[in-house]
Amino acid sequence: MSSDIEIARAARKRPIAEIAAKLGMGPHDFLPYGHDKAKITHEYIAGLKGRKQGRLILVTAINPTPAGEGKTTTTVGLGDALNRIGRRATVCIREASLGPNFGMKGGAAGGGMAQIVPMEEMNLHFTGDFHAITSAHNLLAAMIDNHIHWGNELRIDPRRVTWRRVMDMNDRALRQTTLGLGGPANGHPRESGFDITVASEVMAILCLADDLADLQDRLGRIVIGQTFDKEPVTARDLGADGAMTVLLRDALQPNLVQTLENNPALVHGGPFANIAHGCNSVVATRTALALSDYVVTEAGFGADLGAEKFLDIKCRLAGLSPAAVVLVATVRALKMNGGVKRGDLGAENVTALKDGCANLGRHIENLRGYGLPVVVAINHFTSDTLDEIAAVQEFCAAHDVQAVLCRHWAEGGKGAEELARIVARLAETGEAAFAPLYPDAMSLWQKIEAVCKKIYRADHVEAPPAIHEKLAEWQAAGYGHMPVCMAKTQYSFSSDPTALGAPTGFTIPLREVRLSAGAGFVVAICGEIMTMPGLPRHPAALRIGLDEHGRVEGLF
Amino acid sequence: MSSDIEIARAARKRPIAEIAAKLGMGPHDFLPYGHDKAKITHEYIAGLKGRKQGRLILVTAINPTPAGEGKTTTTVGLGDALNRIGRRATVCIREASLGPNFGMKGGAAGGGMAQIVPMEEMNLHFTGDFHAITSAHNLLAAMIDNHIHWGNELRIDPRRVTWRRVMDMNDRALRQTTLGLGGPANGHPRESGFDITVASEVMAILCLADDLADLQDRLGRIVIGQTFDKEPVTARDLGADGAMTVLLRDALQPNLVQTLENNPALVHGGPFANIAHGCNSVVATRTALALSDYVVTEAGFGADLGAEKFLDIKCRLAGLSPAAVVLVATVRALKMNGGVKRGDLGAENVTALKDGCANLGRHIENLRGYGLPVVVAINHFTSDTLDEIAAVQEFCAAHDVQAVLCRHWAEGGKGAEELARIVARLAETGEAAFAPLYPDAMSLWQKIEAVCKKIYRADHVEAPPAIHEKLAEWQAAGYGHMPVCMAKTQYSFSSDPTALGAPTGFTIPLREVRLSAGAGFVVAICGEIMTMPGLPRHPAALRIGLDEHGRVEGLF
Repeated sequence: MSSDIEIARAARKRPIAEIAAKLGMGPHDFLPYGHDKAKITHEYIAGLKGRKQGRLILVTAINPTPAGEGKTTTTVGLGDALNRIGRRATVCIREASLGPNFGMKGGAAGGGMAQIVPMEEMNLHFTGDFHAITSAHNLLAAMIDNHIHWGNELRIDPRRVTWRRVMDMNDRALRQTTLGLGGPANGHPRESGFDITVASEVMAILCLADDLADLQDRLGRIVIGQTFDKEPVTARDLGADGAMTVLLRDALQPNLVQTLENNPALVHGGPFANIAHGCNSVVATRTALALSDYVVTEAGFGADLGAEKFLDIKCRLAGLSPAAVVLVATVRALKMNGGVKRGDLGAENVTALKDGCANLGRHIENLRGYGLPVVVAINHFTSDTLDEIAAVQEFCAAHDVQAVLCRHWAEGGKGAEELARIVARLAETGEAAFAPLYPDAMSLWQKIEAVCKKIYRADHVEAPPAIHEKLAEWQAAGYGHMPVCMAKTQYSFSSDPTALGAPTGFTIPLREVRLSAGAGFVVAICGEIMTMPGLPRHPAALRIGLDEHGRVEGLF
Repeated sequence: MSSDIEIARAARKRPIAEIAAKLGMGPHDFLPYGHDKAKITHEYIAGLKGRKQGRLILVTAINPTPAGEGKTTTTVGLGDALNRIGRRATVCIREASLGPNFGMKGGAAGGGMAQIVPMEEMNLHFTGDFHAITSAHNLLAAMIDNHIHWGNELRIDPRRVTWRRVMDMNDRALRQTTLGLGGPANGHPRESGFDITVASEVMAILCLADDLADLQDRLGRIVIGQTFDKEPVTARDLGADGAMTVLLRDALQPNLVQTLENNPALVHGGPFANIAHGCNSVVATRTALALSDYVVTEAGFGADLGAEKFLDIKCRLAGLSPAAVVLVATVRALKMNGGVKRGDLGAENVTALKDGCANLGRHIENLRGYGLPVVVAINHFTSDTLDEIAAVQEFCAAHDVQAVLCRHWAEGGKGAEELARIVARLAETGEAAFAPLYPDAMSLWQKIEAVCKKIYRADHVEAPPAIHEKLAEWQAAGYGHMPVCMAKTQYSFSSDPTALGAPTGFTIPLREVRLSAGAGFVVAICGEIMTMPGLPRHPAALRIGLDEHGRVEGLF
């Protein structure tokens, strides 16, 4: 079979106006970006209020392993398959970050015959959304130092400015810097640093905002640091919210592209899945729901992190309610969860597979705890044996869940038609009764405990007194109603990345909490979180270039 | 009369496909960006080789004063006027930088009835070119520190890395920084800083590149610093040129927009006019020449800096040859050159005006020295008196140059028809015999002296021995054939910004020289050059926001 990039390049793309027309849009309802990308206009979206909403399907996965699960691939395959069985379906996924593509191998949007195109543009500048976020974030940073420079009327404590700068680049040298050096004309020297753009709170805000007015409100609520009296200082105090909104006006409009089978896909927003909630934008999801029978979307990492945040943050804040959940697993990843090393994955090992199914089982229980019907998608690899597949299906049957073998990677939507029929049946029988894990009124600490104990199955949550004080302070300051956003290793239910399967008898250590007042959540960090990646010794950038036809080489 | 932004918003824009069709392009010869912007594809441009070239008209000006000259306005007005008198004319100007719009009042593309639209997008992200330049520049920076971090095989001396980072933002706190702090995982600490994106050598390179292959060659030639043995290290040594080219692939395609009178305008590239050459891209100018009878373009600052660089750098390197030059002057600016203070400009002062004409006269002489026919455009202000206008015309007549009163600001192209007819006559009689000021073979020092003595009329050029050594070193290293790029105050022929008119008896002090090996010139700095602006005490960002209709307020 051809590589992802070869398949993507050979795609018979339809003009984007034709894809837009499938969704009912006329030529002035979208802004073209080239012939294969478009933004849906704010005006058109405003006119969709009150439309009948389609059904929302979440695609999530077991804990990720190096073996690969194929969550995006399944999302795309299911979208195409739903269209094949007569449902108008739109896929909603996140945008890729530019920086990491120059470090390791670039990211495809799906894989095999289940991809979204144009792949190259989506891995480069696309429609400029991330650049707009970088600009808005850094304008606020410049306005902070400028305010301090010109007399510091707000009495901002330069030592307590928490708002850093961002760049969409893997650049470890920028993690920790001093700035404002060189004398009075350059401002007050202080320590700071850069994060990668996807880690910006502006990114999370863009992805949770209802519309431009809500975007500006949220931007205004960003807390950038404290005064000398330890009072919070917001972007609104600095007068930055209006200008930031102007910079983000176009970026808030969702991007329309297409699958290899010429079905619509909205690719919009891309917040980190650790210190942020890791889902595509609310605006895109809502727009797709108003234009389709089905919207298939995915959440970051495994279900313990990604689905939890999708449900407890995005769905809660946006009033969304999924109709069913697809839990993606592979035989290979389940075997790794059962103790098999990566080099041994080629050999059949039903015993290890059955052990690894404990991971799958816990995710099934968790998802059902949200009142959602679940189907397991076994994303097929050619090395899977019949006995292995049967073992997964038996495990699922014992948990009263269907497990469907899917071949969308090799066959496109055709290979996921059975999955699509089951999803449609689960969704259309209306058995979903979504309820988030915890109520808004619960305290921030109790919310953290609820996720750690009910989802991760920890015995205890440990936190130093300073964290309890911070949470109590935010509780008192009126942030107590917010959901919590857990930043934990994605490889395990626990905080130990090597504890695969379904570990028990562990404690979650809380290291740090952060307030994302604009996004509307409190981040609870349970481990080291890297917000500015570095380039490897031999970065992909060394191999990236144009071939003699002007096509991109080495990006994939 | 309405404000520029009101006029721009009321513009009856035609769909960009229609503007493209005026130039002979079909729907697949350009990439739309919304309905009013497009990029002309590399493929289409490659197919233009061998086409008959139109005539190139340069619009330049006397030394700028706070009174305003209206160079861009005249460029646009002349373009529209040429179309009115039956010549297919395209306007070529630079793109605006995003950052400064959040400091002072944003920049319009022209003014009054002689503007290019869409103004808002052109002052914000436009088609993303500057963001792409920022990314390419900063990828190289990240690769430098990454190379040093992973063993420094090239033996780069971290103390001698001259390649900084860039951001399209006015942010004084970034002028001088340390980076790589925080321990071994974050690399080697060193001093560095940020420039604004328009000051990037990548910007100058994009504007001088012939095509993608030449772009990559030039990027590869960038010198980023020295080894411990003081040997130059290039972007090619680091393997960054391919990936940088990929990031710039779309950005190299010129942007098509329109004037208020629906004539085509290419707005592409925007290098600094001090440490770089200050002209729109070669690709845009060549493309316009292949598609039009006339191309009207402008150069930065006054003719001493802007026209000199346009002719000695851009035209020399790109093999372009202008057919005529329009020298823009205003009665107000000439009076300021004659000693009138800004507050007194409202009153008639023919004596001061005649004194100030010395500035105009010297620019006329200089431009004729290049073998080019010149016409003076008097950009009309309502406060101009008949006697003042007559005085300018008499002065020009004595210099055997026509001076035309132009009312394009108030009347659009109609107000510049007389200018257009004169320009067409000068251009079509073919009297232009362009020759640059100095030959390639002259030494770098002699080239600097040639500009200072023949254009500025300095008696001497002074430079410390270190500069002479640097120039000799570059001469020996094979860079001697390059033109020089002068960075000097734009307000005077001399290096003293208060010496208006036509000063004599002065020395030009050379403070610094820099090698822009990729762009292909040696920068000679004669004064303080600020490559990262700061925000003012009350930045425009405080007033910028969206109104209730989602329109941008406060940007203009």
